[in-house]
Amino acid sequence: MNQVAELANRLIEAPSVTPATGLVFDVMEAMLAPLGFAVHRFQRGSGEVGTDEEAVENLFAIRNGPAGSRHFAFAGHLDVVPPGEGWTSAPFAPEVRGELLYGRGAVDMKGAIAAMVAAAEHVPQDAGTVSFIITGDEEGHAKHGTRALIDFMRDNDIQPDLCLVGEPTSVHRLGDMMKIGRRGSTIIWLEVEGTEGHVAYPHLADNPIPRMVKILAELDALVLDEGTDWFQASNLEILDMEVGNPASNVIPHRARARVSIRFNDCHTGESLGEKVREIAERHGGTTKQVIYGEPFLTPPGEFSQIIAAAVKAETGLDPEPSTSGGTSDARFLRAVCPVIEFGLCNATMHKRDEAVALEDLDALSRIYTAIAKAALAAE
Amino acid sequence: MNQVAELANRLIEAPSVTPATGLVFDVMEAMLAPLGFAVHRFQRGSGEVGTDEEAVENLFAIRNGPAGSRHFAFAGHLDVVPPGEGWTSAPFAPEVRGELLYGRGAVDMKGAIAAMVAAAEHVPQDAGTVSFIITGDEEGHAKHGTRALIDFMRDNDIQPDLCLVGEPTSVHRLGDMMKIGRRGSTIIWLEVEGTEGHVAYPHLADNPIPRMVKILAELDALVLDEGTDWFQASNLEILDMEVGNPASNVIPHRARARVSIRFNDCHTGESLGEKVREIAERHGGTTKQVIYGEPFLTPPGEFSQIIAAAVKAETGLDPEPSTSGGTSDARFLRAVCPVIEFGLCNATMHKRDEAVALEDLDALSRIYTAIAKAALAAE
Repeated sequence: MNQVAELANRLIEAPSVTPATGLVFDVMEAMLAPLGFAVHRFQRGSGEVGTDEEAVENLFAIRNGPAGSRHFAFAGHLDVVPPGEGWTSAPFAPEVRGELLYGRGAVDMKGAIAAMVAAAEHVPQDAGTVSFIITGDEEGHAKHGTRALIDFMRDNDIQPDLCLVGEPTSVHRLGDMMKIGRRGSTIIWLEVEGTEGHVAYPHLADNPIPRMVKILAELDALVLDEGTDWFQASNLEILDMEVGNPASNVIPHRARARVSIRFNDCHTGESLGEKVREIAERHGGTTKQVIYGEPFLTPPGEFSQIIAAAVKAETGLDPEPSTSGGTSDARFLRAVCPVIEFGLCNATMHKRDEAVALEDLDALSRIYTAIAKAALAAE
Repeated sequence: MNQVAELANRLIEAPSVTPATGLVFDVMEAMLAPLGFAVHRFQRGSGEVGTDEEAVENLFAIRNGPAGSRHFAFAGHLDVVPPGEGWTSAPFAPEVRGELLYGRGAVDMKGAIAAMVAAAEHVPQDAGTVSFIITGDEEGHAKHGTRALIDFMRDNDIQPDLCLVGEPTSVHRLGDMMKIGRRGSTIIWLEVEGTEGHVAYPHLADNPIPRMVKILAELDALVLDEGTDWFQASNLEILDMEVGNPASNVIPHRARARVSIRFNDCHTGESLGEKVREIAERHGGTTKQVIYGEPFLTPPGEFSQIIAAAVKAETGLDPEPSTSGGTSDARFLRAVCPVIEFGLCNATMHKRDEAVALEDLDALSRIYTAIAKAALAAE
């Protein structure tokens, strides 16, 4: 195993199903402290397991450069999704077979964090300030994760200039894609109340289903936008409809539905919530909304060029600047400074037998080193 | 208690939650045999309790008049719906309080059957043939109930000229309404299959919900008819919608719905099933149908005039010839001969503290006597 694989190995063998606390952070601290980083760890949440108040650990580490130097931040998460069944080797007993290192978190994203640590070792301290923004809750509720780290930085007057998130953005080969943005995400619950009655006497009842059908038909016909230069069109999907009426002669009293919207920067979560609420209320329905993330976009420019150059030098590839896919903690970090995601190949993320190529770990570490150096040298 | 109340009392204290067999039929046979009726009892079904193959008892009793005389049939059921909770006195321990007899089945329809038995006693045998078509499964699946009795009559060349069903058709006062018809009833199950996928990648999925919404919107907009001289307009109600998708990021693979249609004699169950199927298939859906009953209508004429005259003489009321409400076994008997329903007040049917006025039992018996005599005397 190369040095980066050794580091990844140590992180993977500390089980850390989301939300993570303790051991995996001990391992991380033991890697960073010898490199001159001041490591701050704190827990948030003290509630019941399985709720969004379950305890979460976060780690912020910083190695200051000369006064007035630039500040480059690596961001990521040490928690992993549950391993599930059917692994060839134990998910938290990392194993090399062929040229691959197997284990839960190999690509998402303990492998990338190992590459960041190795990169930090190769960036001279006088090149500038380097930090690690590492949460134990990205895969879960994310309520007390990166958001708490952002609060910590604000309270301590810490302001990175650029931030790289190590999510597995590569698709077929390391370096073929980076994420310069992500769509926002919201879920809206719809409810229509009516009046129960017997199907033989419909004039005494008020069936809520036809009104819900009208609401859903209008929502399905909405064209939210046509997409932008950097984003695909926003999309609304009806996830569920539910009445729960087992009877064959009873008109039900309530109909429920749930829609998901993945949206670009033509909208905010709130503006979409208003739009859906207006349609629902016109048909006598009500809505409840949770906004999971606003969209972010770091338009192509200096930062993406730095990343592209580092990727090209190592792999020969021109990474596509994409905004596809789900959400990540970049939805929070966007409020701090320009943020782009770049990392390993995502083919096995969240799957059994998650694995990373040993040579990709080494290559990613060299790319991260080049990005950090260039980011600190930029004006 | 008057004689009819005594008979009702004996029937009510034989518990007979649907489907009924045994004791309550023993009581019924013991009433009819002394009046000169030949009593035929038979069971159908031998399957599991709770299924439509659970054992059911039926009773056909006949007292033949002179050769060539007319034949008048009383029809009804001895099974009752489950009593439920909260009764003031035990549902199967009939009790007189004030001027009311309380007990499950008091109005639906052991009280009416008691009135039929008393009426039969007052119709001279030489007036014509009188029969009783009595099932133990009207409130349940009705698969082996009155239909089996109709088969029995056909197999024995027994053909009534007119048939009166003793359902509780009166609303505010005994005699204010008779049912000259009932709407048909069908349930249709709808299903749309799609392809599951992730909400972030909708182009890789095929959400079945928008297609189901289109189907339901078309069904809800259908105007089946405007009603007829005797029937209100046919009505379609969407009873249920179901997807069962608990996830917030998954596009589901299937949507289901269920509709009920109560329809008049502009349609058949089959014609409506075809209409719904055509709409569903146009949007890639499928249907399954159960027809619970075709509509029946005995247009106002000689039979309704006989009933109206008997009611008027006893109560002073002109009974409204109605086709409203749910289904009854008249949906089967319509195939045998003209059929009309007339019986007690239905305010407490299927409810706790079901009760009948003692004087209504006596009055109903006199009305039934007059109807039977007139029906047998008619040309």
